[in-house]
Amino acid sequence: MNFCSQCGQPVSLLVPEGDHLPRHVCTACGTVHYQNPKIVAGCVPEHEGRILLCRRAIEPRRGYWTIPAGFMENGETTQDAARRESIEEALADVEIGSLLAVVHVLHADQVHVMFRARLPKPEFGAGAESLEVMLYDEDSIPWRDIAFRSVEFALRRYLEDRRAGREQHHFTAIDLRPRSAG
Amino acid sequence: MNFCSQCGQPVSLLVPEGDHLPRHVCTACGTVHYQNPKIVAGCVPEHEGRILLCRRAIEPRRGYWTIPAGFMENGETTQDAARRESIEEALADVEIGSLLAVVHVLHADQVHVMFRARLPKPEFGAGAESLEVMLYDEDSIPWRDIAFRSVEFALRRYLEDRRAGREQHHFTAIDLRPRSAG
Repeated sequence: MNFCSQCGQPVSLLVPEGDHLPRHVCTACGTVHYQNPKIVAGCVPEHEGRILLCRRAIEPRRGYWTIPAGFMENGETTQDAARRESIEEALADVEIGSLLAVVHVLHADQVHVMFRARLPKPEFGAGAESLEVMLYDEDSIPWRDIAFRSVEFALRRYLEDRRAGREQHHFTAIDLRPRSAG
Repeated sequence: MNFCSQCGQPVSLLVPEGDHLPRHVCTACGTVHYQNPKIVAGCVPEHEGRILLCRRAIEPRRGYWTIPAGFMENGETTQDAARRESIEEALADVEIGSLLAVVHVLHADQVHVMFRARLPKPEFGAGAESLEVMLYDEDSIPWRDIAFRSVEFALRRYLEDRRAGREQHHFTAIDLRPRSAG
């Protein structure tokens, strides 16, 4: 961030009075521009025991497999967002179920919120951001080609819980930030 | 948003190619400025059966009672944020427990994520954003003076679950946006 989105003048990085972290503050109008984590909402759609995965047509991780997921928009719930992403990325109209995973992706300033989901009919296809979309048996999931650690986490918890006949939710954090020396 | 935070030139509100919603797009450098919901993290701290509440010293809802909660920062988990807010607002060092509530506050573009928490010692006080902080028995909670609907939702679910001896999580949405005619 270089300029104030309110008035267009340059911003400085400083700790505002009463605050404890550096913020981008406008040198002209004084507006404080906070930056906060973004929510990525997604789901693990299942149809008759098989899992719907999408092969990414866009960077990052083009060519790798993922679940339908994307940035939550203003004005929708996390469940709305997960369902919308399934339609956009996999042309799949899913029913969102229970909360599966919350993954704090600390190096990306993102919180990934994943749900279980049911795909009632085997109707799907590649949306604009997908190269292909497929239903996978548990035994054939391409673990070596999964796009993101958060997606692998969600898939593994999903399958473990399914085997155990339960629907739990799972928190974790992934932190690939470079460590400061000392 | 009036100006591009990258280059300082004016932005226009338009639907970018391949997108489906209007975004603020820079007329000079083409940067698309997405706006997404922010996470507010908080907790319901309990000490020997009583609930810790804070009376707000700041707007909105100055003078009304709330639980420790605030905007999640980059680089922390939702649990980190809930614990930090308890320290800042109530000078209370809590142990964050299970997920209690996820409230989509649609008119504010916020997702409130609330946890159960334990306050091991009855040590607390009014932080800079609180007028006073108190432990309340269930019967004396000031329901008419609770600051926000999401806080009332979390408190009621907390007490219901405690009575029933369970720890569930609860999703809901609150939408105070004006309805469009027709």
